[in-house]
Amino acid sequence: MTLLSTGTIVPSYVLDSWWTPADGSRSQLVLDASTGEEVASVSSEGLDLADVVEHARTVGQASLGRLTFHQRAILLKQLAQYLSGVKDELYTLSARTGATRYDSMVDIDGGIGVLFTLSSKGRREMPNSQVYVDGDVEALSRDGSFSGQHIFTRIPGVACQINAFNFPVWGMLEKFAPAFIAGVPSIVKPASPTGYLTEAVVRHIIASGILPPGTLQLVSGSARDLIDHLDYRDLVAFTGSAGTARSLKAHPNVVEGGVRFTSETDSLNAAILGPDATKGTAEFDAYVASAVTEMTSKAGQKCTSIRRLIVPSGRRDEIVAAVAERVERRVRVGDPRADGVTMGPLASLDQRREVLSSVARLVEGGGRIVMGSTDAPAGTDPGGAFVGPLLLAFDDAESPAVHEIEAFGPVASIIEYTDLDHAVALAALGGGSLVATVATHDPNVARALVLGIAAHHGRVLMLDRIDARSSTGHGAPVPHLVHGGPGRAGGSEELGGIRSVLHHMQRTAIQGSPDMLTAITGQWHTGAAVRHGIHPFRKSLAVLRVGDQVQGGPRTVNLADITAFAEATGDKFYAHTDAEAASANPFFPGIVAHGYLLVSWAAGLFVDAAPGPVLANSGLDRLRFVTPVSPGDSIRVTLTAKRITPRETEDYGEVCWDAVLHNQNDEVVASYDVLTLVSKN
Amino acid sequence: MTLLSTGTIVPSYVLDSWWTPADGSRSQLVLDASTGEEVASVSSEGLDLADVVEHARTVGQASLGRLTFHQRAILLKQLAQYLSGVKDELYTLSARTGATRYDSMVDIDGGIGVLFTLSSKGRREMPNSQVYVDGDVEALSRDGSFSGQHIFTRIPGVACQINAFNFPVWGMLEKFAPAFIAGVPSIVKPASPTGYLTEAVVRHIIASGILPPGTLQLVSGSARDLIDHLDYRDLVAFTGSAGTARSLKAHPNVVEGGVRFTSETDSLNAAILGPDATKGTAEFDAYVASAVTEMTSKAGQKCTSIRRLIVPSGRRDEIVAAVAERVERRVRVGDPRADGVTMGPLASLDQRREVLSSVARLVEGGGRIVMGSTDAPAGTDPGGAFVGPLLLAFDDAESPAVHEIEAFGPVASIIEYTDLDHAVALAALGGGSLVATVATHDPNVARALVLGIAAHHGRVLMLDRIDARSSTGHGAPVPHLVHGGPGRAGGSEELGGIRSVLHHMQRTAIQGSPDMLTAITGQWHTGAAVRHGIHPFRKSLAVLRVGDQVQGGPRTVNLADITAFAEATGDKFYAHTDAEAASANPFFPGIVAHGYLLVSWAAGLFVDAAPGPVLANSGLDRLRFVTPVSPGDSIRVTLTAKRITPRETEDYGEVCWDAVLHNQNDEVVASYDVLTLVSKN
Repeated sequence: MTLLSTGTIVPSYVLDSWWTPADGSRSQLVLDASTGEEVASVSSEGLDLADVVEHARTVGQASLGRLTFHQRAILLKQLAQYLSGVKDELYTLSARTGATRYDSMVDIDGGIGVLFTLSSKGRREMPNSQVYVDGDVEALSRDGSFSGQHIFTRIPGVACQINAFNFPVWGMLEKFAPAFIAGVPSIVKPASPTGYLTEAVVRHIIASGILPPGTLQLVSGSARDLIDHLDYRDLVAFTGSAGTARSLKAHPNVVEGGVRFTSETDSLNAAILGPDATKGTAEFDAYVASAVTEMTSKAGQKCTSIRRLIVPSGRRDEIVAAVAERVERRVRVGDPRADGVTMGPLASLDQRREVLSSVARLVEGGGRIVMGSTDAPAGTDPGGAFVGPLLLAFDDAESPAVHEIEAFGPVASIIEYTDLDHAVALAALGGGSLVATVATHDPNVARALVLGIAAHHGRVLMLDRIDARSSTGHGAPVPHLVHGGPGRAGGSEELGGIRSVLHHMQRTAIQGSPDMLTAITGQWHTGAAVRHGIHPFRKSLAVLRVGDQVQGGPRTVNLADITAFAEATGDKFYAHTDAEAASANPFFPGIVAHGYLLVSWAAGLFVDAAPGPVLANSGLDRLRFVTPVSPGDSIRVTLTAKRITPRETEDYGEVCWDAVLHNQNDEVVASYDVLTLVSKN
Repeated sequence: MTLLSTGTIVPSYVLDSWWTPADGSRSQLVLDASTGEEVASVSSEGLDLADVVEHARTVGQASLGRLTFHQRAILLKQLAQYLSGVKDELYTLSARTGATRYDSMVDIDGGIGVLFTLSSKGRREMPNSQVYVDGDVEALSRDGSFSGQHIFTRIPGVACQINAFNFPVWGMLEKFAPAFIAGVPSIVKPASPTGYLTEAVVRHIIASGILPPGTLQLVSGSARDLIDHLDYRDLVAFTGSAGTARSLKAHPNVVEGGVRFTSETDSLNAAILGPDATKGTAEFDAYVASAVTEMTSKAGQKCTSIRRLIVPSGRRDEIVAAVAERVERRVRVGDPRADGVTMGPLASLDQRREVLSSVARLVEGGGRIVMGSTDAPAGTDPGGAFVGPLLLAFDDAESPAVHEIEAFGPVASIIEYTDLDHAVALAALGGGSLVATVATHDPNVARALVLGIAAHHGRVLMLDRIDARSSTGHGAPVPHLVHGGPGRAGGSEELGGIRSVLHHMQRTAIQGSPDMLTAITGQWHTGAAVRHGIHPFRKSLAVLRVGDQVQGGPRTVNLADITAFAEATGDKFYAHTDAEAASANPFFPGIVAHGYLLVSWAAGLFVDAAPGPVLANSGLDRLRFVTPVSPGDSIRVTLTAKRITPRETEDYGEVCWDAVLHNQNDEVVASYDVLTLVSKN
């Protein structure tokens, strides 16, 4: 494994082999962001993308079809561990893209972190099978013979992931991980200016031998006719400019062919300073710090960067001064490999031209540069793509330019609002954004601002004295939460825990009889076949099956039992102790048994006491008390194995049991799920 | 309230007033489907749709913004009750569209049923507020000072609902209801041929006075430039032809402007007969009955109708014979107002031309008519749009025609499969469908077929001897389950319970400190401010607030307590009774207290026993036992009001309490949600 040497053509990885274009193919040169030296060139000329798609749909789908959600998630964890071991090389290469050490950490460690988080969530929140059950069963007949259940199954095609240049590692991994857990093979298409870093990651991933065949392919260079080969079985997840998103979204295979298309595009993200966050407050300081961080980290080349500072009327100048003071004190622009540098160059000279042109348009649109300059920062290499931090002020807060023109670099604008409604309206003028920050410690201000702007945003970060230090930051999507936003932000979602996995699956409503629903979902449905015989607590996971059932009781509840339970537990609520008061209660006929008495007794009626495969009762879900139990009533319990989740890395698993208590009139008294840990053998 | 008389121009309802075009406007004539008599004409010429959109966004949004989810849901229930009282008039008008009594029931009662179901689900499954909390809180910092929570808030625009001609009542109500609960005003655009029936429903709705201003507008006639006025704040929900869907989806305001667009288009839905469902089985009979129903109800003009019968090799002829026999015995085509008629005409002569032309193309594509004829059925009015049931057979199961050409009338085709994989592949050739039926009583066949085709379908109905009579049928979407499908079916979802409401809302990830998350969501988050003082069980909903807290304990658990509990409940599981065996358990240090003992004692520690506003413990959720409790340990409990849901139509509401048990080392022993019913006053 070696670093790229100058003149290298960045290869693609397709059909489970490395591929480089024929000699003489047209290729694109990629330069070091700080020095302008040649790093490599990229080209996908001559690559047959129909073959690549077909390989994913056949070999890739077959490979993943042999694994469960948990098994796929485990592989991701192994991959994360493997990549953690090769970070140094990735960091070195990352510096050539203009990334500082901190920027690289966000990209590289952030990407690896997505693998860890989604692996963990996949195993905790999904079943160890290939069918994800969504929501509750829906009764569709009175007699229980016909019900509905939503399930998710993986889409039967390929996930094509078209990434932006700014996060060559994170961008790839955050899209690949959920597709993989879902069971959908990926074709990764990085942006050419930094694709050599993505290629390095893929090279390590392939070398690790962890991934099954056909599950990951890499197209270095242009995506060319990729979408021509896709249909409704496939998905395109795009991150990049709104212009490119538009042309992809208008492709006939999307409009007519039903290719699933998600896009995450740059937006003019706002940061609103609450009226209470005056100078000297922790919120003020956190706001200013966040503004500077978002302007300078990754040299402001983040789709989530703050572009619009929206501050209370009359407060603009003090904020500009505070931002300028912090920039002066904390920001050093230069080659990220040099000591003391805190902000690198843009990714390319093209980006620099683009940013300066946008700044010019902002100025034309009414902006005035109140901090920084468009000149190259002192001491930087003239061959590098350097731009220093720039802050513009707009007197007219409604100027279209400030809400529409994005300079994708270390550039932000500041405008003033008159009242909270105005602040909300200004934020909304962005036309849909990925994220906004609201800095306030006043719950009423928080509520007014956040609920006002929420529907225009995919994420809102609330900054106050409590979370100022622990916050993961305005600009950082976290794998637990959705990333994306309406309108200009692309109108889609990524991440958000296992939501991101489900985006690679189709939801289908299944209607049928309990036995058939059980066959499809792997979960026992009320009314489906049951098996009696050996007590199910005596069965390890090797032999336990859904539908295994034990019944217990009846046991009669006497007033003395209720009184004794009240005494023993201290729960002397009047409904259990005072006949007259209990009768006055609208739900009870008189004294009734404690709900906790009923579930405690039920355990006594269904338990098999001797040591055996059932190791522990780990919890209980969805307990509902339906019919009160009076002295003289008797209860019986029915316990049925409902859902079995073996743990891949433990010698036990979880078993969820359906528990129902009936009274002597066969009325349901209570129903719930009992959670247990059960040995595999 | 009177029926339309000939010559009437169907009015629009906009800006909270009735509107008709100026005299001399170009209008479209609408004819009685059975007789060809003129019913009415429609035109939206001269209507300023920008005003209509603006009215919804301002007046409509403001009206709905004053109501909670529950309050809106209650209005829908009132509306359903009101419309139930005027059904007779709607039935009479419906017959003019060609609908039989049964067809009208599906349309009219089905539509009213959606209102009832969504009203009920909205109140049961959503909070009584304006913010829907989605999923669990996500810890984002070690110290609990920074967490994430997804919420849904309504989109800040208008829902434009463009409906098909076949279900003028259901189509309107199934789209309107979820938008209304979400808090989003609707603009309804029915199809011209049957829009007079939609108009009648709207007229009754408006007359009822139940809806607040601006929440429902009706555009009778062409939608014209409606989409030109929409942006990312708005939603278009379309049902109709794939061609129209395509042109709407390619509109710049969708592609670039981010208008949320969902479409539900016709598809070539399959019904697969399992190999086990041989002649004489209940599955065979149910399959044949379903084929005939789907062919003839609504004269086959349903986007969910079965178009492809996929049957085992060599079984085609017996199925054709059985279908023909049932059609002969059960189907009478004619004017639905005539006695004994079970199948009406198509909706218009245009539709008849369209269907016959599609049949001709199917024949060209290799189909052979094996049942029925393209001649007008005997005894029908030559001015009516009559077509009799037609079944075509294709020898080549892979013929593109059978999988691509849809005759939107009483027309289906039959093909044979060789094995289950082949059946799956044939179903998938439809390129994405709304629904498929699988008739089998064999769980293995069910699993292979259903999991094979699920990702190509929005809904799969499993037909067997158990649900054959209780099934709601292949062609009938139910409000509980999603309606829609991938690919050719439009690639979207409608209905599915409150999923349909959430489609009208934006999901936003909120990050912040516990206090701020509490302020936004209205639900108490761990770590947020709490209030002590009066025991919260002494507070009615009028004064109880989230964050009200009571603490109880400590109480020490002795071995005698555990033994006594085991005796009293009968739960003598070895971990509570046998020191040696308990020590061998991987999770326990020795004998531990029953989990049920802990929650029972906790109730004793937090309860306030005297009669008061807390009426009952109705259940418990998400109980997890985290740390075992050994003899000598002591526990304390902290109970905090987490979520308060007053019932609109009751004098009580639900309060969900966050309960946490700690031991003497401040380790969490157990956590759960306690559900109670509490008086409003």
